[in-house]
Amino acid sequence: SNNEDGNERNHNDEEIQKALEEVDSCQNEIDALNEQASEEILKVEQKYNLLRNPLYEKRNESLNKIPHFWVTAFVNHPDLSTILSDSEEDCLHHLSKVTIEEFEDIKSGFKLGFYFEENPYFENRVLTKEYHLDSLEEPTSKSTTIKWKEGFDLTSTKHATSKPGQKRGTEHKSFFSWFNDHSDPLSDDIAEIIKDDIYINPLQYFLVPDVGVDNGVDDEEGSDQEDETEEQGGGITGDTDEETHDIQNTVSE
Amino acid sequence: SNNEDGNERNHNDEEIQKALEEVDSCQNEIDALNEQASEEILKVEQKYNLLRNPLYEKRNESLNKIPHFWVTAFVNHPDLSTILSDSEEDCLHHLSKVTIEEFEDIKSGFKLGFYFEENPYFENRVLTKEYHLDSLEEPTSKSTTIKWKEGFDLTSTKHATSKPGQKRGTEHKSFFSWFNDHSDPLSDDIAEIIKDDIYINPLQYFLVPDVGVDNGVDDEEGSDQEDETEEQGGGITGDTDEETHDIQNTVSE
Repeated sequence: SNNEDGNERNHNDEEIQKALEEVDSCQNEIDALNEQASEEILKVEQKYNLLRNPLYEKRNESLNKIPHFWVTAFVNHPDLSTILSDSEEDCLHHLSKVTIEEFEDIKSGFKLGFYFEENPYFENRVLTKEYHLDSLEEPTSKSTTIKWKEGFDLTSTKHATSKPGQKRGTEHKSFFSWFNDHSDPLSDDIAEIIKDDIYINPLQYFLVPDVGVDNGVDDEEGSDQEDETEEQGGGITGDTDEETHDIQNTVSE
Repeated sequence: SNNEDGNERNHNDEEIQKALEEVDSCQNEIDALNEQASEEILKVEQKYNLLRNPLYEKRNESLNKIPHFWVTAFVNHPDLSTILSDSEEDCLHHLSKVTIEEFEDIKSGFKLGFYFEENPYFENRVLTKEYHLDSLEEPTSKSTTIKWKEGFDLTSTKHATSKPGQKRGTEHKSFFSWFNDHSDPLSDDIAEIIKDDIYINPLQYFLVPDVGVDNGVDDEEGSDQEDETEEQGGGITGDTDEETHDIQNTVSE
């Protein structure tokens, strides 16, 4: 009868509702554990950031003694090389230091710092681009306003010529158009390459030019690092992610 | 003179070589710290996996009391729904339990378990698909050979009809073609959806059908969970990632 069906239906509904409440209560415990795990992992990351920072500073001091280190590493990176125009490459010869500052709670963002020597292109000595990715607010990025010197604005249409046919792996047109672009801070491929690839181990890109990509060092500047690279003759491969670098064996010969 | 130039060049080369060695030594320390950080994070993840497992088991016991829970969650998932053919959807009404086992060192892989009631489609009661992603070896996946009952092989051309025009977010053609596909275990979007999205919190998909997507429950089966869903009337939104679910307030009215 309808009545019996109705009773059974109510009974089933009640059981299902009870089960859903059990699931929800379980889920709350799981969510709390996940939250706890995230916090614990964050603390580990913070701890290691503090341990890494003095090493990065020490590394920067040594890198500073190597002419055109950063531009060479950038140009040798298979993806980053594709966005660098010739003028930008020239400009980045004046890039003397790169820094990355993770904000204290890490999840909330980071700041890239590009330090320049006095150069013909712009007045600034430091260009920064920072990412604010706190999940509670709209993600944003902002960057230093570049004070271009007259006739040297690389973002003007006159200079902003990208390399045709060389694009791959990134949607950005040039280094400085990326620098000024704040449209999608959450998925910024160039920032990711600089932060999570090049910065982690720039030496591998400095030493080993990507096959088929111009290593970007102009011959007329008598670049010392080009000689270095030749001397090392492939002793260090690009596939160094899981290996310990042993530059001693290759450099000191 | 040439001689003086040569001396200066040698001097520079030496300095650069020394700097490169310093950088390399720093880099080794940084790499070691990164390695240490990874290990520590892995230990935290392992610890929380052990804590989560009994909660997942408890959750599975409660989920078992809710008719067609998993098929409803799958069908309500905006991406997963696009690969489910009508026959597969019918077949998944017999899916009673989903499990995920992370291998002990986590990085090395995981195993998905799909438990089925006796059903018209195949003899197996458990279908597993496992991913071996140890970085030292070629990544592989393998899955249970499905013993289809005669005339019910959903991977045969007769049954393998995908929904036209509904595809988005995934390259797989159907659930069982995904299950049998081992071509790219490192970037398996469906495994990722099941493991890192649905399994983490399946209740949100069970409760809230994606707008515009058929919730996939056949009316003639008198589905109880459809009534449940209507009763809750959007009290829990799809945007629950960072919130604590409070089903009590919505279900118990």
